[in-house]
Amino acid sequence: MTTPQSPTLLLDETLCKRNIKRMADKVKKAGCEFRPHFKTHQSRVIGRWFRDKGVTGITVSSPEMALYFAADSWSDISIAFPFYPGMIPRLQKLEKQSYLRLFINQVKDLELLERDLQNPFSVYIETDAGYGRSGISYKDKISIDSLINRIEISSLAKFHGFYMHDGRTYSARSAEEVKKIAKPSISALLKLKENYPQSKLSLGDTPSASTLDNFDGIDEITAGNFVFYDWTQCQIGSCTIDDVALFVLMPVAQSIESGTKAILHGGAVHLSKDTIRIGENKTYGQAVIRTDSNTQILSETFIIALSQEHGTLNGYKYTNSAESVLICPVHSCLTANLFANYVTFTGSRIEKRILS
Amino acid sequence: MTTPQSPTLLLDETLCKRNIKRMADKVKKAGCEFRPHFKTHQSRVIGRWFRDKGVTGITVSSPEMALYFAADSWSDISIAFPFYPGMIPRLQKLEKQSYLRLFINQVKDLELLERDLQNPFSVYIETDAGYGRSGISYKDKISIDSLINRIEISSLAKFHGFYMHDGRTYSARSAEEVKKIAKPSISALLKLKENYPQSKLSLGDTPSASTLDNFDGIDEITAGNFVFYDWTQCQIGSCTIDDVALFVLMPVAQSIESGTKAILHGGAVHLSKDTIRIGENKTYGQAVIRTDSNTQILSETFIIALSQEHGTLNGYKYTNSAESVLICPVHSCLTANLFANYVTFTGSRIEKRILS
Repeated sequence: MTTPQSPTLLLDETLCKRNIKRMADKVKKAGCEFRPHFKTHQSRVIGRWFRDKGVTGITVSSPEMALYFAADSWSDISIAFPFYPGMIPRLQKLEKQSYLRLFINQVKDLELLERDLQNPFSVYIETDAGYGRSGISYKDKISIDSLINRIEISSLAKFHGFYMHDGRTYSARSAEEVKKIAKPSISALLKLKENYPQSKLSLGDTPSASTLDNFDGIDEITAGNFVFYDWTQCQIGSCTIDDVALFVLMPVAQSIESGTKAILHGGAVHLSKDTIRIGENKTYGQAVIRTDSNTQILSETFIIALSQEHGTLNGYKYTNSAESVLICPVHSCLTANLFANYVTFTGSRIEKRILS
Repeated sequence: MTTPQSPTLLLDETLCKRNIKRMADKVKKAGCEFRPHFKTHQSRVIGRWFRDKGVTGITVSSPEMALYFAADSWSDISIAFPFYPGMIPRLQKLEKQSYLRLFINQVKDLELLERDLQNPFSVYIETDAGYGRSGISYKDKISIDSLINRIEISSLAKFHGFYMHDGRTYSARSAEEVKKIAKPSISALLKLKENYPQSKLSLGDTPSASTLDNFDGIDEITAGNFVFYDWTQCQIGSCTIDDVALFVLMPVAQSIESGTKAILHGGAVHLSKDTIRIGENKTYGQAVIRTDSNTQILSETFIIALSQEHGTLNGYKYTNSAESVLICPVHSCLTANLFANYVTFTGSRIEKRILS
């Protein structure tokens, strides 16, 4: 590949559409609702590729992100982040454009929303499976009961169901391990449904959505990362390298240490500082080569250090010929967030949301 | 502090201007040139605060960033990143607006620039002090000689001097340690000047610029981070917490584990995933309280985990009262890069450059 003018976020449109279709088909076949998380791509254009597959309800991680998609006629939006009072001004704008589904943990928050909103909305109870990111423990029957009882008599709020993002599946290193880790979380959700039969059960993580053979008892899939996948998902077993649709093309700036390493233009402001440990090695991104729609992993060639703009590539073998290196990101959500546009392999620019 | 609508990048304008003035005064008193690095703030408004202190030459980390500042009449810009051929189209635009100083490691790159540029430019040789980010080893006399000899007969290029960013000073945990680490790097630079007496010596890292009592033999200071400082610079001994001018105000979304922890709205897309290890603890950001222009560190209260939008705050003591928490970032350059604007403590918005 020739040198770009600067690090470039490259999207394989065909693979991305294939990832969307596969997940939409899998969810449909399982008889579940599909409410994909849009925080990974943050793009109205890519959002429309989901609409083409029949998706009508979406998930986002902030009211700001919801406003970006509401402006593109998405009229059923879940905000998968615990409600806090500062959200109110943006929710008041949003409720005029979209039906909202909110994550509420406390009765007092529900009462605040009843006071300040005008239109009906749904409530998810986020269920913490022990992972501890946010939500209410599935064992905390008192909190869950009091919240649901209060929702039942609300003039605006309607109880939708339980949401779970089991981040522990990210520690898996095979599809079998994902299934093993996901099993008790799903059992916990199913138990909740026994007690609250009116509830929908919603599953949020890409490893579970990608690897589970069936979604028995689950009502909704709200995963997001699968739209691109990444090097971490390859390690987890959610996908193979041939499913990864997002890369960063980085110019080679310098060959160092007799050509055994290279300095790339591509640092923390392009890839993010997210890392993954594979065996002895900690990496910020894996070098690959693309041939048609195949992706070949360059063995022992990965980013070992990152500063703001510099990336140090280990095991670089093309010192005197290559002008750029294609990197498979460790975490595509954070990488995509750092660019203002996607560029497809055929050279088109694709709009995305930019920073707060 | 009341809850903001979303995580907000807060700038203390008074402290920021004080940091600029202090460094400008120190550099002037030492008889050096000041070519501050603008990659930390990436803001035309803040750039003008430097201009008010007499700064006329600046340093940036990419041609794109140079174009942003050239549009605000900066006419002497160093691009502190190794030149690669993909830069040419942007350099051709830039040379019409600014005098350029480029980092060149190879004769063939110089020849390419002579062919494709039309105006005179300066050349820095980036010197690697053993840290290995980029540049030529100061011991590699053959490469340095051949490059300088070629520059001497160039029609466009003029040799400016040697640049060194000694990233090893970041491992220091006291001002004395910084000085100890910086000493051999500075000696290496001084030796180069003995061999090439026409060269200017340029020092790039904030720890050295902040802690060295004098810059004997050094001609230029090109540090950047001091404009804001951050929690890492506090640990290094470059500054105290009362010098830090940049914070992120994060809404409290949920109190967990009986109020011993809190979930903040503020994740990797607000702070970056950069961390620092202090004793046993790895942290992504330190909670502080501001009283007038004083900053008080909240002991044992820091961010222990980050996902895309969520931050988990340990040791949180204000669960039932505070609606937001002020976080001192681990790495202000990466944090500032993630926002579209600064907001001052008096509520003004300050423009900055946004993503590539």
